[in-house]
Amino acid sequence: MSELRIPIEQWQNLTAAEQAQRLARPGQAQAESLREKVAVILSDVRDSGERAVLNYTRQFDNPNATSLRLDDKQIQSAIASLDDHVKRAIDTAYQTIYRFHEAQRPEDLSIETAPGVQCELRYAPLDAVGLYIPGGSATLPSTALMLGVPAQIAGCQRVVMVSPPNQQGELPAALLYAAKRCGVTDILLCGGAQAIGALAYGIESSPAVGKVFGPGNSFVTEAKQQVSQNDSGCAMDLPAGPSELLVIADDSANPAYVAADLLSQAEHGPDSQVILLTPSMTVAENVRQELIAQCTQLSRADIAEQALLSSRLLVVADMNEAITISETYAPEHLSIQTDNARELLPQLTQAGSVFVGHYTPESGGDYATGTNHVLPTYGYARNYSSLGLVDFYRRYTVQEASQDGLRQLAEAITTLADVEGLDAHKRAVTIRTETQRTESRL
Amino acid sequence: MSELRIPIEQWQNLTAAEQAQRLARPGQAQAESLREKVAVILSDVRDSGERAVLNYTRQFDNPNATSLRLDDKQIQSAIASLDDHVKRAIDTAYQTIYRFHEAQRPEDLSIETAPGVQCELRYAPLDAVGLYIPGGSATLPSTALMLGVPAQIAGCQRVVMVSPPNQQGELPAALLYAAKRCGVTDILLCGGAQAIGALAYGIESSPAVGKVFGPGNSFVTEAKQQVSQNDSGCAMDLPAGPSELLVIADDSANPAYVAADLLSQAEHGPDSQVILLTPSMTVAENVRQELIAQCTQLSRADIAEQALLSSRLLVVADMNEAITISETYAPEHLSIQTDNARELLPQLTQAGSVFVGHYTPESGGDYATGTNHVLPTYGYARNYSSLGLVDFYRRYTVQEASQDGLRQLAEAITTLADVEGLDAHKRAVTIRTETQRTESRL
Ligand SMILES: [Zn+2]
Ligand SMILES: [Zn+2]
Repeated sequence: MSELRIPIEQWQNLTAAEQAQRLARPGQAQAESLREKVAVILSDVRDSGERAVLNYTRQFDNPNATSLRLDDKQIQSAIASLDDHVKRAIDTAYQTIYRFHEAQRPEDLSIETAPGVQCELRYAPLDAVGLYIPGGSATLPSTALMLGVPAQIAGCQRVVMVSPPNQQGELPAALLYAAKRCGVTDILLCGGAQAIGALAYGIESSPAVGKVFGPGNSFVTEAKQQVSQNDSGCAMDLPAGPSELLVIADDSANPAYVAADLLSQAEHGPDSQVILLTPSMTVAENVRQELIAQCTQLSRADIAEQALLSSRLLVVADMNEAITISETYAPEHLSIQTDNARELLPQLTQAGSVFVGHYTPESGGDYATGTNHVLPTYGYARNYSSLGLVDFYRRYTVQEASQDGLRQLAEAITTLADVEGLDAHKRAVTIRTETQRTESRL
Repeated sequence: MSELRIPIEQWQNLTAAEQAQRLARPGQAQAESLREKVAVILSDVRDSGERAVLNYTRQFDNPNATSLRLDDKQIQSAIASLDDHVKRAIDTAYQTIYRFHEAQRPEDLSIETAPGVQCELRYAPLDAVGLYIPGGSATLPSTALMLGVPAQIAGCQRVVMVSPPNQQGELPAALLYAAKRCGVTDILLCGGAQAIGALAYGIESSPAVGKVFGPGNSFVTEAKQQVSQNDSGCAMDLPAGPSELLVIADDSANPAYVAADLLSQAEHGPDSQVILLTPSMTVAENVRQELIAQCTQLSRADIAEQALLSSRLLVVADMNEAITISETYAPEHLSIQTDNARELLPQLTQAGSVFVGHYTPESGGDYATGTNHVLPTYGYARNYSSLGLVDFYRRYTVQEASQDGLRQLAEAITTLADVEGLDAHKRAVTIRTETQRTESRL
């Protein structure tokens, strides 16, 4: 671990090109071969349905799979075997996530835009949604909560969770417990692009859903993009990229806390991005020492170390410079570890989720503060929203004009129809407002 | 026109396959060649910037173009030449659209999810947005209003409108007037995939925007998809498809009104889809007669006729069947021409925009009721939302825990971190809650 060298750099000493490089995201390979492989899997699932999905599951996950489903007994006995304190932890997280998302319940809107003309904005839950939970070595009950709770609050009628089973055809008990807690209606034992295909196109035992949610590997991400661009009509949540944390810390920060947060991010994966901005060289040096000391104790030290190799410890001129850099970078997670953190919030809006002050670790948001951990990364925070309850609804509009209301707008509509050269659009108004015609029937 | 044959069919007499065929959308060619052509244009714009865009503008729009900009004098004199009644029509539409969209202003949210744990949902306007307005023969001030008004209300700092000029390098005066009314900050004379490239990657005189909005031809649509999938980070509004209207009409409907609405939709383009559902054979027959009679009088009769050839006049068993079919089809525009239209609304939610009753023509929504005419078509209404004010914002979350608040959640977070095998996530909590450590500095 003594070899772990993490440079501290003064922002002002870097050239513009170096500054840009320090904030550059790792390139995302858009390999044509990935695109083609995923297209093949998707069209196979589209053509052969359940059989194709089962074949892929046998190939990649459980060689002996004969079904995509657990029976109720398997689910119940797995859940029964789960430690009570894990159940309690899931229950606590469920409650905070539920509270925060329930508060986001959208309200229909109705206003008169002109006398006799009523316009409405209405919300309806998506009928059927698909939730992707990554598998492999990881157990991710938290992701099931982040996707399942809003689906439950919105009242989606069908909530289909997909996750690749282990080689014994099992899913983790904690995941099953979280899924049941959220009222997931169907669980399919499959993963990868084939799981996305099963959701978007439907298979014999599970009709197509309207939108797919959740994180995944490059196959899953590519499959989500393909089904949302082709004629499946299936929507997707957010574009994905490696996870990121940017910490802004001043003299009031505790370097041990800062390092613990940076390591939390680093242990997610070798491509995680971790950035510290501080006006204090002392803080930077102490954080570095803590990083090195704490990293050795992690079970995922190898992964964290790799991520730290491309981490940035940047000493800035002052807090204003830190703010400017953070706003440019637009991190997925932004932690502000200063005594006046809340005062800085109005200037720090370009982030997926913001962690305020010394006692709000990023891991709190991953699990239990109540915010959603599905966030725009890779700079998408500039233009995309954090996952929220409304992503499980569709909005549509309604309008109703009385005959008088239509008369109010008739001149505007017919004039614009003239300008745009659309006669029938004009006639649809005049035929209704020219009095002789209105009561006629052919 | 006597040759215009529009079949009336009884829904119940069709086989399931025929029923599916009657509601099928026209196939959308996803030609690989289109994909490649657009990719070439985009990478050309990315590499060569303004010069590349100007070259394409010369090639496709104005052979003598020397700039992508109108000077202020040109804009002012074009606007000065515009008829007052056209200005008034744009003003009226501006006001209703403004009222309806202003009512959608999102409110920040802050709640305590556990004692000492505050979670917030905040909205920030997108900094910079791009509005695509199709050109060619059409003049579309209404589209400028539908995109420009919400951008103005949201308070986007830069609003860049792009539209291809005519061969003389001009844009329609009505379009310029609408753009100025909405406070568009920059107008670029370009169209097609190159215009989307200019918006997403930025060019020398106009930095990149974060999201592109608006309708366009297949090149524009493909370009929007490509920039929203590659690493430009640029988002897009909605997937596009041919426009649609489905009318549900009973005995109380006026066949002349229904026909006028169906023709409004038909005149948009030869691939427009037009469907009538009625329990009354008499209504169906009278609508057909009116279609034939009214169509001849349209300046775009050829286009409307082509669309009518694939239109559907379907006689259903009763209103319930009409509702089921409409919900399955999920039309972009849904017109309910019955005396009890409002009562049916709770059952009719799968549509982009709903037009209630006998005096609310679809052309009203295109121009001036106040609702947005950028809507999900091609069945996307099942899973996508109509364009609204919030599409010009991004949502992000904020959380703040006190030390006590963190203690409240500590067990849940550390337990879930254990389950997910993430040590540093656990330590980020324990290091803050284990009392000896909290006040220490290294
Ligand atoms: Zn984390
Ligand atoms: Zn129209």
